[in-house]
Amino acid sequence: MRPAPSGAHRYLAELAWLGGPSPVVEKEVLLEVHNGRIAAVTHQAGPRRDGVVRLAGLTIPGLANAHSHAFQRALRGRTHGRTSNGDFWSWRDAMYGLAARLDPERLLALARAVYGEMALAGICAVGEFHYLHHSPSGRPYGEANVMGGALVQAASEAGVRLTLLDTCYLRGGFDRPLDGPQKRFGDRDAHAWARRADLIEVPDDTVIGAAIHSVRAVDPGSMEVVREWADGRGAPLHVHVSEQRAENEACLAATGRTPVGLLEASGVLGPTTTVVHATHLSGDDIARLGASSTRVCLCPTTERDLADGVGPAAALVTAGSPLCFGSDSHAVVDLFEEARAVELDERLVTERRGHHSAVDLLQAATAGGMRSLGRSGGVLEPGAPADFVTVRLDSPRTAGAGAPGLLDHLVFAASGADVTHVVTEGRPVVVDGAHVGLVDVGHALAEAITPLFEEQP
Amino acid sequence: MRPAPSGAHRYLAELAWLGGPSPVVEKEVLLEVHNGRIAAVTHQAGPRRDGVVRLAGLTIPGLANAHSHAFQRALRGRTHGRTSNGDFWSWRDAMYGLAARLDPERLLALARAVYGEMALAGICAVGEFHYLHHSPSGRPYGEANVMGGALVQAASEAGVRLTLLDTCYLRGGFDRPLDGPQKRFGDRDAHAWARRADLIEVPDDTVIGAAIHSVRAVDPGSMEVVREWADGRGAPLHVHVSEQRAENEACLAATGRTPVGLLEASGVLGPTTTVVHATHLSGDDIARLGASSTRVCLCPTTERDLADGVGPAAALVTAGSPLCFGSDSHAVVDLFEEARAVELDERLVTERRGHHSAVDLLQAATAGGMRSLGRSGGVLEPGAPADFVTVRLDSPRTAGAGAPGLLDHLVFAASGADVTHVVTEGRPVVVDGAHVGLVDVGHALAEAITPLFEEQP
Repeated sequence: MRPAPSGAHRYLAELAWLGGPSPVVEKEVLLEVHNGRIAAVTHQAGPRRDGVVRLAGLTIPGLANAHSHAFQRALRGRTHGRTSNGDFWSWRDAMYGLAARLDPERLLALARAVYGEMALAGICAVGEFHYLHHSPSGRPYGEANVMGGALVQAASEAGVRLTLLDTCYLRGGFDRPLDGPQKRFGDRDAHAWARRADLIEVPDDTVIGAAIHSVRAVDPGSMEVVREWADGRGAPLHVHVSEQRAENEACLAATGRTPVGLLEASGVLGPTTTVVHATHLSGDDIARLGASSTRVCLCPTTERDLADGVGPAAALVTAGSPLCFGSDSHAVVDLFEEARAVELDERLVTERRGHHSAVDLLQAATAGGMRSLGRSGGVLEPGAPADFVTVRLDSPRTAGAGAPGLLDHLVFAASGADVTHVVTEGRPVVVDGAHVGLVDVGHALAEAITPLFEEQP
Repeated sequence: MRPAPSGAHRYLAELAWLGGPSPVVEKEVLLEVHNGRIAAVTHQAGPRRDGVVRLAGLTIPGLANAHSHAFQRALRGRTHGRTSNGDFWSWRDAMYGLAARLDPERLLALARAVYGEMALAGICAVGEFHYLHHSPSGRPYGEANVMGGALVQAASEAGVRLTLLDTCYLRGGFDRPLDGPQKRFGDRDAHAWARRADLIEVPDDTVIGAAIHSVRAVDPGSMEVVREWADGRGAPLHVHVSEQRAENEACLAATGRTPVGLLEASGVLGPTTTVVHATHLSGDDIARLGASSTRVCLCPTTERDLADGVGPAAALVTAGSPLCFGSDSHAVVDLFEEARAVELDERLVTERRGHHSAVDLLQAATAGGMRSLGRSGGVLEPGAPADFVTVRLDSPRTAGAGAPGLLDHLVFAASGADVTHVVTEGRPVVVDGAHVGLVDVGHALAEAITPLFEEQP
């Protein structure tokens, strides 16, 4: 992202939820911004001020999208047909086919447009779970981190703060080497992964984190290397876990442990670790995650799209795991929809309401995601990053919302299409519903995606 | 609705799906409209024409919303708090509280705004399951159908074609009379219901249908009266069925039959009947509905919101029941979201993809809904009503869609917010995303809803 303007800016929010556990929505909140941070918050600042940017609607802390594979946005609408409609594994074949067609230039164009889509939906920070490291044959590019560099540049140009979760991916399964399209995902071993990851150069506003692709793809000894690398840098560590029953069965057969059990035994769990999906867990798994304060990133629109199932979100919270959300495959890019789906999908399988409050879901979508990505923020208070998002309350979806249920209305009925203003690190990224830097995100998406499919046989 | 303009109009759709079982999307389709009907359809009409309205994006037949309780839109965002968050039955208490505060004037303002919201989302026809007949005490208004008349006027002013499903609602449960807020729902008996329903005067473009509220609310003898009334007029008949397990249990205990079994024994099933929800069915129930070609209206966003559960949609189709969709409580008003939810919710509970194709879901959302509402249409061919909807393909949600998967992209990723043009019975109702008649639907919603809650203690 270009450096934040050094001058001070003042915003007057008609209504604001300032983040944190309180569901209170305040009127006429003046947010003063200096050098990318919030300098002052004045409550009941009065309805009119000169020299301020007025934010009509409800302003909240910036949203954090804790799990993204940006390139998978190109598959939207393209995996429901006959060849890839069966299950997660046949979907994965379509995804591998796409992955094989990407080079640094195409990844830059695609990711920039996808991060632009995120910005329009109110997302100020994203965690990119990045494993497209090498050339399709598996040979490193001349510049070893050119693909990661493309993601860094894409996020900067789209005005979204990036946590690049550089992913260790060493084998195709418990008893299989990397094969075919997987070859470009892999480093020779965990030490080679760590050496490459050490070389990534990023601007100040980018966080480098680590990821273990999964217990399928990384053996326990290598997991420990990744864990040490992350601990040494104070970096967040993410790992896919138990999205599919087949992964659990293979892990049990190969190691005698569940995936969560294996992560625990390998020292991977803990408060700076985020497990992604956590769909098919045993009671012991839930207890292990909660007792270690391991974070859980749910990706409910992807999990619904891929027929994964419904994870035990409420039980995880009760056990002690903070939640966050990710749009993952980008079947949908809308953190309000991710947030409500956590409650709504538990309603479907339990036939009861009331598993998660709106304010808890919003905290997960803001501060919870920021923490998972190794960042502060997610709350509007002096000293915090000046990340905030305004949602209009006069659209057909949001109109008629009333004070006592305003956060409920936001979580259960608003859409990314209702976001009008986004300020990220003090810089206006979205103004009146339009992206300031990219101009036409729809055009950018089409330009990036269409060529990827025109060449297919 | 005001009469359709008598002059001819011509529209050139950049891309069009013309309805029916074929998933083919054609380029440059010229739609000629005369007196509210499609006069001619020219394929490959060429990219440029003078004197035509160009429709950029994908044009499809108008959507039909087969199940609406317009007034419940006021509850959006207001039932997730402590007092009404438990289950369907506690939600129903909040709904009853709202129902008690409505009079004809307020219902008109609210329903007009809600139908305006529907028009903006591409809905050309709606079925209103109407039971707010009398004054709150249960005494008929001086003009017995003044509440139904408000709905007719509201739909006309919002440019949505109405099927008024006048609902027979006689008791509070198998062994309970109507009580409290239910009193205004009830006529003295089924014959009194039929006499009142006979008196409704509506314009030519409104269809009068019948509804049986549920097996809880109408005894078998009275169901037969309603059935005869509908048959005598060639009118569609709708009935809520098996949304909740408690209804099934009470019906079995009181009658020894399941709700569907009781409907069958009472002669209610058949191809002009639509059962709404059909969530908790036995194998026999599914076979009965399919064998009688009874239509099934699923309302998945409401069923998810109310924690009803996931109905056996694919099994119903296989058995022989055509599907249609309704937004019911209007937690969401978006038929694309209803359509995809039918597939996605079955994915969640089966952990498999591929239960319904996009074209099947679109047929249910268009022609299926129109048939359920006693109407022709849902297909773009000469002689059909000129109802069509254009969805932009350059929004962040829809951009990048490609020819082979265009209908998949529409069903699985588009939103009501992507609708740019709506023509209903030949009349432009939505142009460039704005409602032609109501100007500001958000403002109308807020004006209608806010006063309903300000007076609460």
